[in-house]
Amino acid sequence: MARLKGFQKLTDIEDALSVFLEKLKQKKLEPESAHISMSLRRVTAKDVVADQDLPPFDRSAVDGYAVRAQDTFEVSQFSPRLLIASGDEKIREGEAREIWTGNPLPDGADAVIMLEHTKRRENEIEVWNPVTPSENVSRMGEDVHKGRTAAKSGTRLKPHHIGLLAALGLTHIDVARKPKVAILSTGNELVDLGHKPKANQVIDVNRSILSGMCQELGADAIDLGIAKDDISEIDLKIREGLGKADMVITTGGTSVGYDDFVPTAITQMGPPGVIVHGIAMRPAMPTALAIVQGKPVIVLSGNPVAAMIGFEVFARKLILRLLGIESEPRPMLRARLTRKVPSALGRRVFLRVQVFEKEGEFLADPVRVKGSGVLSTMTEANGYVMIPENREGLDRGESVTVHLFDRIRVY
Amino acid sequence: MARLKGFQKLTDIEDALSVFLEKLKQKKLEPESAHISMSLRRVTAKDVVADQDLPPFDRSAVDGYAVRAQDTFEVSQFSPRLLIASGDEKIREGEAREIWTGNPLPDGADAVIMLEHTKRRENEIEVWNPVTPSENVSRMGEDVHKGRTAAKSGTRLKPHHIGLLAALGLTHIDVARKPKVAILSTGNELVDLGHKPKANQVIDVNRSILSGMCQELGADAIDLGIAKDDISEIDLKIREGLGKADMVITTGGTSVGYDDFVPTAITQMGPPGVIVHGIAMRPAMPTALAIVQGKPVIVLSGNPVAAMIGFEVFARKLILRLLGIESEPRPMLRARLTRKVPSALGRRVFLRVQVFEKEGEFLADPVRVKGSGVLSTMTEANGYVMIPENREGLDRGESVTVHLFDRIRVY
Repeated sequence: MARLKGFQKLTDIEDALSVFLEKLKQKKLEPESAHISMSLRRVTAKDVVADQDLPPFDRSAVDGYAVRAQDTFEVSQFSPRLLIASGDEKIREGEAREIWTGNPLPDGADAVIMLEHTKRRENEIEVWNPVTPSENVSRMGEDVHKGRTAAKSGTRLKPHHIGLLAALGLTHIDVARKPKVAILSTGNELVDLGHKPKANQVIDVNRSILSGMCQELGADAIDLGIAKDDISEIDLKIREGLGKADMVITTGGTSVGYDDFVPTAITQMGPPGVIVHGIAMRPAMPTALAIVQGKPVIVLSGNPVAAMIGFEVFARKLILRLLGIESEPRPMLRARLTRKVPSALGRRVFLRVQVFEKEGEFLADPVRVKGSGVLSTMTEANGYVMIPENREGLDRGESVTVHLFDRIRVY
Repeated sequence: MARLKGFQKLTDIEDALSVFLEKLKQKKLEPESAHISMSLRRVTAKDVVADQDLPPFDRSAVDGYAVRAQDTFEVSQFSPRLLIASGDEKIREGEAREIWTGNPLPDGADAVIMLEHTKRRENEIEVWNPVTPSENVSRMGEDVHKGRTAAKSGTRLKPHHIGLLAALGLTHIDVARKPKVAILSTGNELVDLGHKPKANQVIDVNRSILSGMCQELGADAIDLGIAKDDISEIDLKIREGLGKADMVITTGGTSVGYDDFVPTAITQMGPPGVIVHGIAMRPAMPTALAIVQGKPVIVLSGNPVAAMIGFEVFARKLILRLLGIESEPRPMLRARLTRKVPSALGRRVFLRVQVFEKEGEFLADPVRVKGSGVLSTMTEANGYVMIPENREGLDRGESVTVHLFDRIRVY
């Protein structure tokens, strides 16, 4: 008969992570080349260093006339000045030369007057708006200097990064290969999506949820399906996952006692096996972290919300590290709690809250928690607050840091 | 000769949007069915109403023994109680029945004791942990009640929504079709990605950036390439875009004076044409909003940063409306400005800031602005602050709302 007690000892989140990461010696994934049009949300695999100044020379930012700024200092609507239209390479005192957006600034000129602030009169240009030196000019190297880093290694590419790299003349970017994450659900009670559950059965939603969370991080999810509470079936599925993926995530079968099929299966696969089992957190306490064939196996609770929180804390971290990202915090804000919340000392509690803005202030309304299987506590929330291990709950009106996983409502 | 003055009149952002949206009478796109595994970040096209209670009956959330909670009220480690192991349909006083996660709670029972908090002795179960009524039970309808809305129309599906809809037995979800957005760059100075620009030329980065911004919203970008500053070429390209897409976005050729090729081309395409041209904002002042063949044409500045801000304010709004989303604010937070920032009355200024957390406080550091063509002001920022039209700048230390478009740094 299996152990019948609860976890003998719970490990703090930080300790669990540090012991596990040290044993795992995880390397980031090898780079691959992505066309810039396919690079959104990919992660740079090395520093991108500018091989040129950008712009490569002083150039006009508008259509207009290149001038010496000092020739315009005194002008106004009431005392316009006529400058001589020049076609020369070099602009001399009192001269102006037509210039278009992107054109190099001619020698002698240090500013550009916008076309709409001029009037052409035969060979003269009437100007009535003074310009300052460099006005309407993009200075050489203003955007990036040659030799400077335009995007650091580990940058999740957003449209603005893509723009800057495109401007440097890049068509392809070295990005980390997409991590492959194999996902297995375990439990005799589970049926697959699209099947009508009988009275003893539950539709498995964990694979859908965790696959979505992988996609959000830019990882490819590989579906290992559902395994019964059977050690050899679980063993087979985990091996299949390890063969196909960079890491395996399981849900269910991770309590202590009868229902520890997954840790048992992993232990039978040989050392190092299960590194930590039982985390001082709520929900997701029965989470286990294991290493098989040198790859991480993250053993999550079968309860959907606990599985999500366990993923958030452990699997997310590992996927980011595969991508070469040390930390990618969710959007955060500080908000005031709308009511007091109790919690047990010695556990980190992940409190789901609905943040909303009211009269310029952010308020965090704790979602009534009914159980870690209750998905509506996630759909009613848009963020979570971590109650530290050394606190017994949080006070009403207390200022807390909220980690957002969905949109803020604005009233 | 074209008009030579600047904009006669600038329109406030809100006025521009309301006039434009009223003329446009934009409808949301028709729905299509998406498999739940392909539904991440898609947008629900109608309310999803629960056709059943979830859970459909009271069921056990753990493996253990179903009991009457009151039979355990007095027990403790020092005075355990023995309950009689029952196999009956109904649990009576002093009885316990083995139950697994997901199983329906037998009649008479109102709580479940976890397996690890029990010891089996032949036909008796030793219990020493009291349980309260409903403990370890998922109550019927606890997650969603039959007839309640599980996801509102216009919900951008995140993993937790997907989990809840999957739990309701859905395999497919009605989502808005992906908006198609055709993107055109205009300008004689532009060369395509992968071409080496000559001295008078600039690589076009706007299509890469805007296409990324479309993708981030869940729209498909259609590349119309580059048009010269030539009205008939622009005309042709816009018509091509209108034939293929739900809306067209152009960049460049939208100043007043010589360089107004795009508004001129649109005006020649017939009424209603250009609805607004010249917005009281900075950057992106020369933005124009037009309607051709009943579809929106958003005419953005050729400067990349101005194009991004113009997209953010106008195109983003329209794409969201096509998806049936009235508002989808970016993640926001309140932060303290690290320095004073000047701005002109009567314009809404989009100030790029780098937000970071320091000692539990969020600080917003304004990025030194050198020009609206300078992409590094975007890559160095992670959010923007709107300085309202009625303010002349912001003070050092002032508390501001930051709209985040990238990650927060944590020190």
